[in-house]
Amino acid sequence: MTKLSKRDQVWRKLDEHAHRISDLDLNQLLADKKRFTDSHLQLEHLLVDWSRQIVDQPIVDLLNQLAVESRVYQFLLRMSRGDQVNDTEARAATHVQQRSLHTSDQSLQSMLNLAGGIRRGSLCGHSGKLFTDVVNVGIGGSHLGPEMVYRALVQRRGPRIHFLSNAHPSARSEILSALNPDSTLFIVASKSYGTFETLDNARFIRQWMNERVPPDADLANHFIHVTSNPDEITNNETVLRVPSSIGGRFSLWSAMGLVIAIAFGVDVYQDLHAGARSMDHHVFETTDVAHNLALKLAMLAVWNTNVLNTESHLILPYDPRLQLLPAYLQQLEMESNGKSISRDGEPVNWHTSPIVWGGIETDGQHAYHQLLHQGTRKYSADIIVTRSNGSQKDNTNIDDWILANAVAQSTVMFAGNQESSDPGFKNIEGRHGSTIFVLNELNAFSLGALIALYEHKVASLGHLWNINSFDQWGVEAGKRLADDVYGFLHHGEAQNIPATTADLLYKIKKI
Amino acid sequence: MTKLSKRDQVWRKLDEHAHRISDLDLNQLLADKKRFTDSHLQLEHLLVDWSRQIVDQPIVDLLNQLAVESRVYQFLLRMSRGDQVNDTEARAATHVQQRSLHTSDQSLQSMLNLAGGIRRGSLCGHSGKLFTDVVNVGIGGSHLGPEMVYRALVQRRGPRIHFLSNAHPSARSEILSALNPDSTLFIVASKSYGTFETLDNARFIRQWMNERVPPDADLANHFIHVTSNPDEITNNETVLRVPSSIGGRFSLWSAMGLVIAIAFGVDVYQDLHAGARSMDHHVFETTDVAHNLALKLAMLAVWNTNVLNTESHLILPYDPRLQLLPAYLQQLEMESNGKSISRDGEPVNWHTSPIVWGGIETDGQHAYHQLLHQGTRKYSADIIVTRSNGSQKDNTNIDDWILANAVAQSTVMFAGNQESSDPGFKNIEGRHGSTIFVLNELNAFSLGALIALYEHKVASLGHLWNINSFDQWGVEAGKRLADDVYGFLHHGEAQNIPATTADLLYKIKKI
Repeated sequence: MTKLSKRDQVWRKLDEHAHRISDLDLNQLLADKKRFTDSHLQLEHLLVDWSRQIVDQPIVDLLNQLAVESRVYQFLLRMSRGDQVNDTEARAATHVQQRSLHTSDQSLQSMLNLAGGIRRGSLCGHSGKLFTDVVNVGIGGSHLGPEMVYRALVQRRGPRIHFLSNAHPSARSEILSALNPDSTLFIVASKSYGTFETLDNARFIRQWMNERVPPDADLANHFIHVTSNPDEITNNETVLRVPSSIGGRFSLWSAMGLVIAIAFGVDVYQDLHAGARSMDHHVFETTDVAHNLALKLAMLAVWNTNVLNTESHLILPYDPRLQLLPAYLQQLEMESNGKSISRDGEPVNWHTSPIVWGGIETDGQHAYHQLLHQGTRKYSADIIVTRSNGSQKDNTNIDDWILANAVAQSTVMFAGNQESSDPGFKNIEGRHGSTIFVLNELNAFSLGALIALYEHKVASLGHLWNINSFDQWGVEAGKRLADDVYGFLHHGEAQNIPATTADLLYKIKKI
Repeated sequence: MTKLSKRDQVWRKLDEHAHRISDLDLNQLLADKKRFTDSHLQLEHLLVDWSRQIVDQPIVDLLNQLAVESRVYQFLLRMSRGDQVNDTEARAATHVQQRSLHTSDQSLQSMLNLAGGIRRGSLCGHSGKLFTDVVNVGIGGSHLGPEMVYRALVQRRGPRIHFLSNAHPSARSEILSALNPDSTLFIVASKSYGTFETLDNARFIRQWMNERVPPDADLANHFIHVTSNPDEITNNETVLRVPSSIGGRFSLWSAMGLVIAIAFGVDVYQDLHAGARSMDHHVFETTDVAHNLALKLAMLAVWNTNVLNTESHLILPYDPRLQLLPAYLQQLEMESNGKSISRDGEPVNWHTSPIVWGGIETDGQHAYHQLLHQGTRKYSADIIVTRSNGSQKDNTNIDDWILANAVAQSTVMFAGNQESSDPGFKNIEGRHGSTIFVLNELNAFSLGALIALYEHKVASLGHLWNINSFDQWGVEAGKRLADDVYGFLHHGEAQNIPATTADLLYKIKKI
């Protein structure tokens, strides 16, 4: 790594330790009575245990040294202060400021007032009906955060919530077919207000509404726009502004969170912020890298990615309410750190973000864990367990059964299974590192803290890899070429359309 | 590869060609007027275009030679004839026979009669009410196939369908809270009838029912069991049998498909079989490896995995109805071929199944495509487009816009974007191979054909990699250890529980 290459000696040492630990019986590490004490941190609602990562104390010491020398903690402070950390777009990254100053932020305050009004019924549809349904029309960063939180926090008491991200006709019809135009509110969420899917869905919805309400109906209350580009909205409908310095994948702390506040109430939305602030406090106040959770996760990711050469990283929540957490973190990690040009404009010659994937457990145990245990692929994993704070009336203690499975999977990934009496086809090599996260309860506070922790891990990794975590230039070329292909399909403009593509399109149009 | 190592020369040649093509401007390949003709196959409802894979004719010729020499086609024939291809379990793999002989299969006929009866209302609940809701209680292979098909084919006219796979209390309550015990039918689907989640959910449901119906209610009609182990069901409820020679991930063609037949009707379920049979016909009748789609996909996977060293493989459907196809194929590919012990009992020294992941487009374009275009990871992709057969009344031709995006993404993955006028941070290297699948309509027939195609690709790869695609021994150790950990939590039995794990569990129980 450019910034880190001055410390080649550290890297050489890490490689030597990787070699050393590859010969070690990992069961010995698990039997060490001091290992758990040295390999976990406990915050208010969250326990994080990395004792099943392929490290021991000399390795942890080296990683801590690397963290100190790379000045990653100082980078996080600069980000939190509003320094220009997004060079290619000449901007700060202000998601942390957004949640630390939120009561004084006018746009966020308008959003909370609006959400309260919709829940209380003081904002109504054109015919005076209460809003029974709210549709969040947005995609990517304007969708995944809100829906992830919505699925996670199931104590909903407001209107029914729907998410329309895709512009495919089947996505539209599935949602619209069950709605009443008199009592449905649409949130049109697009940071740039130039997102094709969102604008085309909004256009389609407006037409759908117009066909179903009296000609003189005033639909102004039915549409709320959330954007960084308010000049695009020229009618008299409500506009909530998102600061341009908050990237889509970091934006649920801004007015992009409107649908969360409508679904659960302003208090719950503020709890989400409070949880994130508590994590901010931990991360920005813990100068000792050995006890800073965000830096711990980042350094373990560097160890796995750049020394042990893992290819992918799994997000495995043992709670179906966290069903969208893998997709949310997939965007957060891969869009932020799926880069190969350094901050200095040069190609990197080290790996950046792994493929981030995963799914809900224990379903995954019945699907892809065969490969995790006996395949040829190197990976690391985050295993997330939530504890119930309610009493269990049932026979089996499902809460404990789930915990037992999470711990067992982590242990087999780590130490494998080599019983000499077993035939070869039962052999499991192990040597895959995982971290266990235990939330003592899944609520807005603990979820907010968990999301903020991952945000800081991702920003730390961007600094360590010397890339800009806050832009996403890689998606532009595909958009441009899609316009060209669409132009070819509809106007026969063959510019930029090679023969192979043209032939495919001719064939399809004749199907 | 053991069987293939005799042909070391072919592998050396493939490596040389990989080196040669790495220097080639891939735009030249796309400009070749013959490339599309030579790089696609069209069947009844499906067009497959591999012109954006990193191959040219000399490479394709070598891959075809490898296919012939490995006798992979002959292996598929042996599988289809019912030979014992699953050595470690001393069984055949009879999913192909199941669909070719289905009218004479008594169990499948019973299943279809039952589904018809439920839809017609000749089978009723304890109080004579029609079944308005059906819950499929099953996980992994007893869940993913039926739910994937259910989400894909949206023209439902039968009872409402629910899927309960997870035993987490939130999964149970989300589904049961909306149900009427008088009019709900439960399908308890477990091949072994030993799956903890399914049996515990069934036990919970039975208790839930008993608490809500009169004491003398006869619940026999409310439960249908689908299993290979019918001796486990000792009451008088209906049992449908699945042959033990059909693996869970290949089982939607058996009585495991009951919920599909209930949701859509017997005709639609039979169309699914007919589509699969049409693909079987293509694969088993096409002796020329160059024109056999299953072998083509398998050889391209070998090229990507074992020569170009890709790490993961994406499934990218541009249709939200195929939302579960990535998860379904993830299980099919990773559970079948995530193996590292050869059929000869020796560790393999080549890569087997890549990580299979993906998601619905164009949502993914707004989430993880940044990494696909500018990250450091090697991957391949299947891009699946469905065409609408209805007329478009709308302004934008969304069907064509989606097609344009699919083709554009595939092209940028392949050829990249290197405009000399652009700053470095806009550079896209490309050189990722993808295959475009076009279904001229998404219906039961075309979906059945697509699934069968992937099944045959997976079986072919298992043969080429010299592993058994039909077992899944890797998941056993985790189950055993979970029992140990649960025993420790509830009875303090510390056997097999290392200090690190015990300390974590003590800490959590005190949270």
